[in-house]
Amino acid sequence: MDELDREQIDRFLDEQVMGRLGCHDAEGTYVVPLIYARDGQVLYVVTTDGRKIRAARRNPAVCFEVDEYDRKTGSWRSVIVWGRYEELHGDAKTAAIAALGRRHGTRRASSEKQAPEERATVAFRIVIDRATGRAVTRPASFS
Amino acid sequence: MDELDREQIDRFLDEQVMGRLGCHDAEGTYVVPLIYARDGQVLYVVTTDGRKIRAARRNPAVCFEVDEYDRKTGSWRSVIVWGRYEELHGDAKTAAIAALGRRHGTRRASSEKQAPEERATVAFRIVIDRATGRAVTRPASFS
Repeated sequence: MDELDREQIDRFLDEQVMGRLGCHDAEGTYVVPLIYARDGQVLYVVTTDGRKIRAARRNPAVCFEVDEYDRKTGSWRSVIVWGRYEELHGDAKTAAIAALGRRHGTRRASSEKQAPEERATVAFRIVIDRATGRAVTRPASFS
Repeated sequence: MDELDREQIDRFLDEQVMGRLGCHDAEGTYVVPLIYARDGQVLYVVTTDGRKIRAARRNPAVCFEVDEYDRKTGSWRSVIVWGRYEELHGDAKTAAIAALGRRHGTRRASSEKQAPEERATVAFRIVIDRATGRAVTRPASFS
């Protein structure tokens, strides 16, 4: 198993589209998949209101995980980020929505954009405090 | 966005290989990818000792997330499970290692099996208390 360095971690975060936010509140731990975009040591997310947002507001020390698993070979890479949840409003929110749209296309910027009338759009960033990355590479001939 | 029913959730859990365990301890929330196998309302995992195990021993109310994202269409499915961490020992541990091996092949049963001398193998199960599933299907023609 190899440890990824800072540059490899950043490159992996840029290659991937979806990560999983881990947050914790009085109800317990909650892990939810979200589309994100990295800019420096910050991850941007545009999503809808709900439990994850309520939990992260109360307890902004969050974890964010990104991985890739190759079913053919069993090779995998993963990055785990610890950081601070910061909700975005006004111009910062507009900029985050635009940045996610540029990165992934407007329809993908919010993974739950299907029913905008039902739940409010929330934009936030995770300011990365620490990140670790690991990889296991297995030969393609393994089956 | 569609809600998955119990049968769809079980089928999705059987199709996928890797999920993410969310646990929480005094250091904070931790999300880590793990290979699993479902048997009824129980998920089995064989892994190595480390922070996730220490956290789950202290606080066995864990979350487990499985998702699939189609980068071509933006379609996705995800299942979130809440359950109880139960560590396995003796015959139960041996059975779990064998079951994961049958499901995914011996080399894949433990995702961190690279350095068996360094860290002890731990087997556990998550007894599912509650599970939710969601899906967004987008036409392949969208780009």
